[in-house]
Amino acid sequence: MRFLSQTSSGGVTEQPFLLGEIPGVLWTPEAADPLALVLIGHGGGQHKQAPGVTGRALRLVAEHGFAAVAIDAPAHGGRPKSPEHDRLITEMRSRMTGGGDPAPVLAELHTLLAAQSVPEWRSVLDALAGLGPAGYWGLSLGCALGLPLLAAEPRVRSAVVGLSGTAMVPPGAAAGVTVPLRFLMQWDDERVPREDALTLFDALASAEKTLHANPGKHEDVPPFETDGALRFFARHLA
Amino acid sequence: MRFLSQTSSGGVTEQPFLLGEIPGVLWTPEAADPLALVLIGHGGGQHKQAPGVTGRALRLVAEHGFAAVAIDAPAHGGRPKSPEHDRLITEMRSRMTGGGDPAPVLAELHTLLAAQSVPEWRSVLDALAGLGPAGYWGLSLGCALGLPLLAAEPRVRSAVVGLSGTAMVPPGAAAGVTVPLRFLMQWDDERVPREDALTLFDALASAEKTLHANPGKHEDVPPFETDGALRFFARHLA
Repeated sequence: MRFLSQTSSGGVTEQPFLLGEIPGVLWTPEAADPLALVLIGHGGGQHKQAPGVTGRALRLVAEHGFAAVAIDAPAHGGRPKSPEHDRLITEMRSRMTGGGDPAPVLAELHTLLAAQSVPEWRSVLDALAGLGPAGYWGLSLGCALGLPLLAAEPRVRSAVVGLSGTAMVPPGAAAGVTVPLRFLMQWDDERVPREDALTLFDALASAEKTLHANPGKHEDVPPFETDGALRFFARHLA
Repeated sequence: MRFLSQTSSGGVTEQPFLLGEIPGVLWTPEAADPLALVLIGHGGGQHKQAPGVTGRALRLVAEHGFAAVAIDAPAHGGRPKSPEHDRLITEMRSRMTGGGDPAPVLAELHTLLAAQSVPEWRSVLDALAGLGPAGYWGLSLGCALGLPLLAAEPRVRSAVVGLSGTAMVPPGAAAGVTVPLRFLMQWDDERVPREDALTLFDALASAEKTLHANPGKHEDVPPFETDGALRFFARHLA
């Protein structure tokens, strides 16, 4: 892991890095060793320093003494897109605006991306093994790429996921997830059918899993769910 | 409201009372004025000092500086049962043990009980008007009797309800509920069909409402949901 710079503000040190060709950012407490490490998976079309990612990272570090790390998902941020990525992304957008069903294309795209991102996240865990037990926090695309990671990686011990449905995640991933989970859904999600989200929650194999459903659309997750997710990690990792 | 006795322990004062013929218990902080008042509705077959009621009351007072009040529901605790109560309770138990569908009988029983308990709770609020803004915390029977109260009583400003389904609550009650709500359901509830609980959540008219679903049966609500409910009231009433 090659750190590109280091800045500190408000008790939080931010270090962009490259791990091989993967661009990422590590946030750590300025004054003490972190209690644990939370991996943050960004949403579709976003990147490692999208406002929702940075906002979560700063609170994890400043309020709870955790470290946080985010990487650009394959084909996101400044990362290269293959012709296959381009084809699937174009097809997905065409269906989303044209009224077709994007779910089968999303599942195919997410399966392709996950095959690359799962080993990438594992190499991040290798590089940051000294930072304590790990959690994962990812919604929407971050959920679709996170579930296969949770199924494959015993070092990740708890997770906050959601804003996704059974038709949008790599097939079979949910059945391999056994860590304590919080699963968020939006009751009026315009991108995820209600039944699809409930079916995905049902398929998760974790003995401890809690569904939180709130009214509103995909982007309308209420701020108190962020507070609650922070407490969830404090309870499971600290 | 006629107080029958007063004892204090661990900073909490407990005062059993009679309000007309309604037996109740009031819990208050020993050393300061309460910040707010939480009404606790007990479950079916329970009473005002069932362990789950007293446990919640003590935490509301000791940890958050609230007052808490519980009353015996009609036909519960030491209260008289009418022949109609007896008939419905016998029929309900017969269906629950004999494999019939108890839901229609439960709806009829709960509608009968709510017609009596809603004005009773309102008279409790009249008697305790000085104790600050009010919340309501009731699961199962406590939800079935709580929703009509929430629909009728603007002094109750937030609520934690659940462990009930649309077929078990008085018809139309959910559509009149508009306060911020937390709704608990058990994903494998042997008494409340999953779809029934989801339909009841959907029918609640509150703009702010959050469904929390956890694996397990009716009695298996995880302890962290009690912690969460306490924080919910702290956020909405304190």
